[in-house]
Amino acid sequence: MNIDRGMFEALDRADPLAPLRDQFLLPHGVIYLDGNSLGALPRATPARVARVVEQEWGGDLITSWNRHGWIQTPQRIGDKIARLIGADPGEVVVAESTSINLFKVLVVALKMRPGRRVIVSEAENFPTDLYIAEGVADLLEQGHTLRLVEAGQLVRALDDEVAVLMLTHVNFRTGAIHDMAGLTAAAHAAGALTIWDLSHSAGAVPVDLNGAEADFAIGCGYKYLNGGPGAPAFVYAALRQHGHQGGAAQPLYGWLGHASPFEFAPGYRPAAGIRQYIVSSPSILAMAALEEGVDLMLKADPAVLRAKSLALTDAFIQLVESRCAGLGLVLATPRDPARRGSQVSFAHENSYAVMQALIERGVVGDFRAPDLIRFGFTPLYVRHVDVWDAVEILREVLATGAWKRPEFQTRAEVT
Amino acid sequence: MNIDRGMFEALDRADPLAPLRDQFLLPHGVIYLDGNSLGALPRATPARVARVVEQEWGGDLITSWNRHGWIQTPQRIGDKIARLIGADPGEVVVAESTSINLFKVLVVALKMRPGRRVIVSEAENFPTDLYIAEGVADLLEQGHTLRLVEAGQLVRALDDEVAVLMLTHVNFRTGAIHDMAGLTAAAHAAGALTIWDLSHSAGAVPVDLNGAEADFAIGCGYKYLNGGPGAPAFVYAALRQHGHQGGAAQPLYGWLGHASPFEFAPGYRPAAGIRQYIVSSPSILAMAALEEGVDLMLKADPAVLRAKSLALTDAFIQLVESRCAGLGLVLATPRDPARRGSQVSFAHENSYAVMQALIERGVVGDFRAPDLIRFGFTPLYVRHVDVWDAVEILREVLATGAWKRPEFQTRAEVT
Repeated sequence: MNIDRGMFEALDRADPLAPLRDQFLLPHGVIYLDGNSLGALPRATPARVARVVEQEWGGDLITSWNRHGWIQTPQRIGDKIARLIGADPGEVVVAESTSINLFKVLVVALKMRPGRRVIVSEAENFPTDLYIAEGVADLLEQGHTLRLVEAGQLVRALDDEVAVLMLTHVNFRTGAIHDMAGLTAAAHAAGALTIWDLSHSAGAVPVDLNGAEADFAIGCGYKYLNGGPGAPAFVYAALRQHGHQGGAAQPLYGWLGHASPFEFAPGYRPAAGIRQYIVSSPSILAMAALEEGVDLMLKADPAVLRAKSLALTDAFIQLVESRCAGLGLVLATPRDPARRGSQVSFAHENSYAVMQALIERGVVGDFRAPDLIRFGFTPLYVRHVDVWDAVEILREVLATGAWKRPEFQTRAEVT
Repeated sequence: MNIDRGMFEALDRADPLAPLRDQFLLPHGVIYLDGNSLGALPRATPARVARVVEQEWGGDLITSWNRHGWIQTPQRIGDKIARLIGADPGEVVVAESTSINLFKVLVVALKMRPGRRVIVSEAENFPTDLYIAEGVADLLEQGHTLRLVEAGQLVRALDDEVAVLMLTHVNFRTGAIHDMAGLTAAAHAAGALTIWDLSHSAGAVPVDLNGAEADFAIGCGYKYLNGGPGAPAFVYAALRQHGHQGGAAQPLYGWLGHASPFEFAPGYRPAAGIRQYIVSSPSILAMAALEEGVDLMLKADPAVLRAKSLALTDAFIQLVESRCAGLGLVLATPRDPARRGSQVSFAHENSYAVMQALIERGVVGDFRAPDLIRFGFTPLYVRHVDVWDAVEILREVLATGAWKRPEFQTRAEVT
C-alpha cells in the first residue's frame, strides 16, 4: 500500500474528535507536539479569564469568594478531574503544585508506615519527584532512604522495609506506562502504600485509580489538561479502603484546609475530607483557566481519545522508521501500544540541535537530556496530517544536516 | 471648626496620589475598604492578562518560557518587591503562597539553630502562621514548641531556648505595628533569628528589612500589592550578614530551585541564591497580574503613601468617635499613628451583622472574629471623601438598627 498525505487527510475527515480541535486557539504555521509540556489554549479561556478579572475581581471584589463560588473552586475542579482518573467525588482537590502536593502525600504515607524507612522509585522517574522525596528524607532526619531501581526491578525491590512505592505513571522521557494495578497490588502485598504521579497521564491515557486500589496520586494541570502555564495541580487521596483522608494530617497546615477556616481559631484542626489537602487561597485567575481546560477535556469520550492517541503515535513511529531510516534515530518509546503514553521519543546523537531546527520550522516538540527529541500527541487537537507533516520536516532536517547551524547548538540556561 | 464633607473633597483635590486612583477600575457606588483582604483591580491588568493568555500562551506556547521571560518572573518581580520592603536585589523572590513560604523559612531558621526548640510568637498573630508553625513542629518531631505571648511580653519571652521569633509586622485584626528593628535586635541579642510576615505591611506601611537587620520575611501579593485573588506570595532571605541563602537548604526541593533546572539531573543541588526558594513553575497568569499591581505601587512615593494612609485612618477614627459616639463602638486600633498600619478596627457587640448591613449599603470592609469590624484604607485608591461617606453610612446603620435584619445574622461557611 502506498502511504501518502492524502491518507492522513482522510483520517482527519473521519475523526470524531475533529470538532474539539476547533475549540482551541492554535497558532498558524505551527505543528504543536509539546502539549505534554504546556497544553494549548482553549478557545473559551480568554473570555472566561477576562470575566474573572474584570467582573468578578474588579467588579465584585472580595464578595466574589462567595458570590462567584471562588472558595469552592478547589473542590469543584477536583471533582471534575476525578472523572478523568477513576476517582470518586470528594477524593480529588486542586491545590498548589505537583511538587507541593507530592510533599504532602509522601509525608502522610510515611507517617502511615512508621516502622519502614524505604521509598522505592524508578531511577528514571521525573527528577523533580525524586528531589521532593530527597527533601522529605533530609527534613525528617529519620533515616529514610530512596531505593531507585530500573523499571523491571520494581516488584523485586518491594520488601518489608518499604513504606512507599512512588512512581510516575507515564515516564516523562520515554512515554512508557507502568502497570498501575499490578504494581499497586505488589506494593500492598509488601505492606507498602503507593503514590502515582499522573502528570503525563491525566487527559492522555486511561487511568483508574480506584480500580487499581491506588492510595495517593498527584498531577499537573498545565500539560494535557490545558490549564495554562504553571496551572494549579491536583491531589488524590483514596477514601475507599484505607481512610487516607483521616489517617494522618498532611504537614502543611493551611488555613483553607482547616476544619473552620473562617473562625480564625487558634490551633489547627484539619478538615475531615479532601479539603485538608488545600493549604492556601488559590489563584482564582489560574483556577478559572484550569477549569476551562478540564471542562473541554470532559467533552471527549476517553475511549475515543485513547484510540486516536494510539493511532497518532503508531503512525508517527512507523513513518519515522520508514522515512527517516538510516538518519540516526533510535526509538525510545515502547512499541507495544498498551505500554505507550501519548508521546513518542527518539534518541539522536545531536538531539538538542535537531529539536532547535525543528522548532525553527514550526514543529514544536522538545529536547530531554541527554539525547532525546520528544513529541507529544494530544488527541484533542493534534491532527493525523500533523503526523505526516512533522515527519517530513524531521526527515528534511536530518537529511540536509540543517541542525548543524551554530545557533542551534547552544542551550538556554536559567540564571 | 465645623467639619463637613467639603473639607474632605478639598483634601482629595490636593491629594498628590489622586491620579493613581484613576489607574484602578473600581466599581461604582462602592466604598471599598477591604484592600487589606483583596486589593482592587489595576486598570492595566486586564489587557496585560489578556496579552499573556492570547499572545504568549496561545500564540507562542512553550517557547514563551524564554521568549517572554516567563522563567524570570519570580526573580524579576521579587526584585521589584524588594524596593518596597527595604531589601536588596537578589534577596526576594516570588513563589507559591505566604503559608508555603513561611514553612520554608521556618524550617531553615530552625535548622540554623539546632540546639534550640522554641518558636516565639504573639498569641494574636495571624492564625494561619501559627498553624504552619504547629505543622512544622509536628512534622519534625524534635520537641519544638510554640511560645505564644501578648505583644508586650515578647522581649521577655526571648531566652536561650528560642530559635525563632516569628511575627506578623502589622496585626491583621487591630492594625498594630510591631517595632521591627527593636524586636529583631532583641531576638538577635538572645541568639534567635527573626521571621516577619509582611502581608499587611508591603505597600501599606514603611518597611526596612535590611535596616532592621531582619533575617527572613514573607508576604502576600493579593492585599496591598493588588496582585489579584490568590496572587503568588514573596519570600525574603537576608544576604547581608547571616548568609541565610546558603546556610541551610529550604526543605521543599523544587525543580525551579535547583542549581541547573533544565539538566533534569538526579540529585537535588540548591541554586546558590534566592532562587532556591522557588519550588514549582509559577502560574504565569497570576504572575502577570501581580506584576501590574507591583508596578503600580512602585509609582507612588512611599512617604506620600504613608502620610495619606495616616490622614485617612486618623480622620476615620476621629469621625467615628465623634459622629458615632454612644453607638457601641470601641476602637481596637492604636491611636498612636506611629503604631498604626493602614487599617482601623472597631469592636461592636454585633459586629458581624453591622458589617453585613454596611456591605449592603456599599461600604465594603470585613468582619474579623470574634467582634471586630475592620476597614482597610489603601492610600493608592481610597479617597478622603470615602472616609466621610463611610462614617455617615456607619452612623446610619447603627443609629437606625438597620443591622438587626435577620438576613444579616447568619455567617457563610465553607463546606
